[in-house]
Amino acid sequence: MSEESAPGPKESPPAAPRAGSREVWKKGGRLLSVLLAVNVLLLACTLISGGAFNKVAVYDTDVFALLTTMMLLASLWILFYLLRTVRCPDAVPYRDAHAGPIWLRGGLVLFGICTLVMDVFKTGYYSSFFECQSAIKILHPLTQAVFVIVQTYFLWVSAKDCIHVHLDLTRCGLMFTLTTNLAIWMAAVVDESVHQTHSYDSSHSNTSHLRLAPDPERASSSVGGDCSCNTAICQIFQQGYFYLYPFNIEYSLFASTMLYVMWKNVGRLLASSTHGHGHGHTPSRVSLFRETLFAGPILGLMLFVVGLAVFIIYEVQVSGEGGRTQQALVIYYSFNIICLGLMTLVSLSGSVIYRFDRRAMDHHKNPTRTLDVALLMGAALGQYAISYYSIVAVVVGTPRDLLGALNLAHALLMIAQHTFQNVFIIESLHRGPPGAKPHDTTPKESCHGLTFANQDALHTLPACPPTPRLVGTNPVGPQEAVAIISAPRGHWRRRCLKDISLFLLLCNVILWIMPAFGARPHFSNTVEVDFYGYSLWAAIVNICLPFGIFYRMHAVSSLLEVYVLS
Amino acid sequence: MSEESAPGPKESPPAAPRAGSREVWKKGGRLLSVLLAVNVLLLACTLISGGAFNKVAVYDTDVFALLTTMMLLASLWILFYLLRTVRCPDAVPYRDAHAGPIWLRGGLVLFGICTLVMDVFKTGYYSSFFECQSAIKILHPLTQAVFVIVQTYFLWVSAKDCIHVHLDLTRCGLMFTLTTNLAIWMAAVVDESVHQTHSYDSSHSNTSHLRLAPDPERASSSVGGDCSCNTAICQIFQQGYFYLYPFNIEYSLFASTMLYVMWKNVGRLLASSTHGHGHGHTPSRVSLFRETLFAGPILGLMLFVVGLAVFIIYEVQVSGEGGRTQQALVIYYSFNIICLGLMTLVSLSGSVIYRFDRRAMDHHKNPTRTLDVALLMGAALGQYAISYYSIVAVVVGTPRDLLGALNLAHALLMIAQHTFQNVFIIESLHRGPPGAKPHDTTPKESCHGLTFANQDALHTLPACPPTPRLVGTNPVGPQEAVAIISAPRGHWRRRCLKDISLFLLLCNVILWIMPAFGARPHFSNTVEVDFYGYSLWAAIVNICLPFGIFYRMHAVSSLLEVYVLS
Repeated sequence: MSEESAPGPKESPPAAPRAGSREVWKKGGRLLSVLLAVNVLLLACTLISGGAFNKVAVYDTDVFALLTTMMLLASLWILFYLLRTVRCPDAVPYRDAHAGPIWLRGGLVLFGICTLVMDVFKTGYYSSFFECQSAIKILHPLTQAVFVIVQTYFLWVSAKDCIHVHLDLTRCGLMFTLTTNLAIWMAAVVDESVHQTHSYDSSHSNTSHLRLAPDPERASSSVGGDCSCNTAICQIFQQGYFYLYPFNIEYSLFASTMLYVMWKNVGRLLASSTHGHGHGHTPSRVSLFRETLFAGPILGLMLFVVGLAVFIIYEVQVSGEGGRTQQALVIYYSFNIICLGLMTLVSLSGSVIYRFDRRAMDHHKNPTRTLDVALLMGAALGQYAISYYSIVAVVVGTPRDLLGALNLAHALLMIAQHTFQNVFIIESLHRGPPGAKPHDTTPKESCHGLTFANQDALHTLPACPPTPRLVGTNPVGPQEAVAIISAPRGHWRRRCLKDISLFLLLCNVILWIMPAFGARPHFSNTVEVDFYGYSLWAAIVNICLPFGIFYRMHAVSSLLEVYVLS
Repeated sequence: MSEESAPGPKESPPAAPRAGSREVWKKGGRLLSVLLAVNVLLLACTLISGGAFNKVAVYDTDVFALLTTMMLLASLWILFYLLRTVRCPDAVPYRDAHAGPIWLRGGLVLFGICTLVMDVFKTGYYSSFFECQSAIKILHPLTQAVFVIVQTYFLWVSAKDCIHVHLDLTRCGLMFTLTTNLAIWMAAVVDESVHQTHSYDSSHSNTSHLRLAPDPERASSSVGGDCSCNTAICQIFQQGYFYLYPFNIEYSLFASTMLYVMWKNVGRLLASSTHGHGHGHTPSRVSLFRETLFAGPILGLMLFVVGLAVFIIYEVQVSGEGGRTQQALVIYYSFNIICLGLMTLVSLSGSVIYRFDRRAMDHHKNPTRTLDVALLMGAALGQYAISYYSIVAVVVGTPRDLLGALNLAHALLMIAQHTFQNVFIIESLHRGPPGAKPHDTTPKESCHGLTFANQDALHTLPACPPTPRLVGTNPVGPQEAVAIISAPRGHWRRRCLKDISLFLLLCNVILWIMPAFGARPHFSNTVEVDFYGYSLWAAIVNICLPFGIFYRMHAVSSLLEVYVLS
């Protein structure tokens, strides 16, 4: 482990005589930054939730001022970090190969660009009546644009860093940036929910139409009384930025997960700097689609196209008369039931395939994967909760008609689909690389388990080879090729798994698009609204649905990883 | 590691050729049980929250029926577990010395007895009008009594078990029992909140008085129309069981934490069966109080007595006229500010003492401690949130008077006290036993870290001695005695730490008693109610305060551990 003690000369001499332990107590540094983050986040949460209620004397300018300050501070810290790591190459001795995979960073850039467009629209919208409102409303989107550019560059460059200087300061900075992103996320979610509720209140029948049209009450209250959005360009700006909210929400969440992994990696010691545990994350583009059976992607694409059509029909019909709302809901639920049913079956068959799979389980410590699993399980709770409330409403409520039955089937299948998809994804993420059989990996695993569990102890063990690079998972590349040639049965399974993951991926994308761009059957359907009353049901949906939407996005990124790994 | 492979002959032969790994993939079994628990808990949560609203057609009999069924199933599983472990002594090859310490089990028994008394009162109350209501209302407290007796015995006997047979079934059973306890906790909290809100609604001025008196609206609705609680004995039963609710709530939470630790310990491999990592948890009773400076306990006892007096004065005055409410609030806040200020200073000085402490940090894996830390941090969020909402209300709100200033100081000190107390407790829990200096423990720690991180690897390492008992922390006992004699400065620090923990413990007890037995300055004080509106503020307080109350109880148990360990 000569690499471990060599770098990092800027660090203060360790208290203990061991070379491996830079920090006496890692949890202490983490505790400090978590306490900072919790306090800042709660303050932001208080102001944002207070600003959402008209009766409370907290205004949206207060929220904008807080968010602008936070973004400026976070940008300054990011610039400081970038300067420091550029000037001192020893600061980052190791890079975590699992952190910040290319699709996550690509998604971040994509959503970042959409957020920039949204900021342009917002600036344009507020500039239309510049004279009669506070300057913070224009300053806020401008600052956000700067923040998004700086942060996206930072995460693109540094997502894999395991930094080893200024540990406590870096932890606090990362946690503060993470908190900033979560606060932006909360503000966007609350803004959308308020908008939705206002639209529902002002007109019960044509909800979806009003949702994206300028809401007179809200527009006047947020603008300041005299001014209003009359010009055509102003209305385009306003409608445009409401359409782009989902991308901003996803951007904040993507950035948060990457920052969290960076925070976990602060001060972490890895075996070798560049190719520690890479499972071959970047296969050649040419072979990317040759290894599938094509059934999965084709079926998935069909469902995707049909789903888009259903979504457009639903939106058009719900904004029409009441009789057509019923029809729209039947179409919407029928499509969802078919889609969820297929996804459940496919996930189940994926799990069944794993029962015959003899690949070793991967027990390595991996903060990225741990976070992925926790987020999948946690975000699923949102949709679970909505489904259980629906089930109780349908079962206990009196009217038993077609719509009630469809709603019940939809809720039950939603629970089953989330459960089996989570089981499939989590099991996939814990599989070793394709060629690695259990008896091959046993000795490697043992030594690697040691490396990551207790670095201090490693150099006391003569049984572990001094250069873990030689026993690492690097020989997987050639071994994998051999496995493909020599084991056709394994190859068949592998193709099936790739098909399954692609199919699930496309289904999750269409199930993300529908709620993210405004389909709310929860309110068009009167069963739950009548059972729970509007305010309680709105609270349930508005709190839980953002998690459900995030779940879909996160499942897509996890399934992409499953596709590449299997 | 001959102990590791010897026991557990009932287990199916492992798939991998390694003797150490009974389970191919531990996370898979855990995933299954967590999914079960999440689904059951969400169903219970839906019914309980639905039952809390009058407008929703879910009635309290539905909730009682669900809880009764869950308790019966959990009791049956516990009996099955007890029978199995009695008949097959090999099922529990290891016992976790950290799990279920004596004060936790003692507290469980104490709260269990109070819950039994509550059940007697409830049965008596509902028996008073037996003829005009459903039988489930009497069946529920009787089932709860059986469940409490069975579960308390189970946790007393088996809290330390690391079971190694029927892993998946045991995990599911433990998670189901844990879910049952959480559902009971939720039902109790919701019941108390509903009661509180009804009392507030029916009479705004004399809140505290009505809180424990029979509420006519609720009583008639819950009884069924014709019957009412007229007899003296019935009223005593009713008042009695509302006084005993806090104990039931704490019982459920204590049982939940112990069940969680048992769940984490399923299938865990430990170095030796009885004395793995005991830090000497049970010092002799005689020396228990000789090692303090007496300043801490005496000051703490004074604050405790004064606090009790303040609480009684507050309750009496708030139930009187409006003018005296003001006075009661001034007294209440003043006492709390003094108490919290002292606690903050004392926690800070404790952390300062640790800066000069040269004991090693304890890096062992320890599910009990990890859970303790997570619960301390998580439960503190409740009080943090209430404080931040108070701060925003006072700072943004217009009236600036003595009460506003006191409220602001109280909220700020509450945040500071929670923060510094958490830092002190968490740092204390991570210290090694008194005599262990860093350079003493290095080799031991290395081998032990290995034992707990990757058991599969251990027997591949000739560097680790085959009998870890010999290098474990067992020689601490005599070493500790030597350290006390040879290092008087260490002894002085130790006494200080014991004083600090006792002082904080007594303060936390009095700060638990006040909200747990009904002091609600949040509603007597009009600042927040006026600022947020009653419904929003009631939602905030009713969701967050149970966590705040649990925090106090949990801090008491952690401080007791700190006292014993330091």
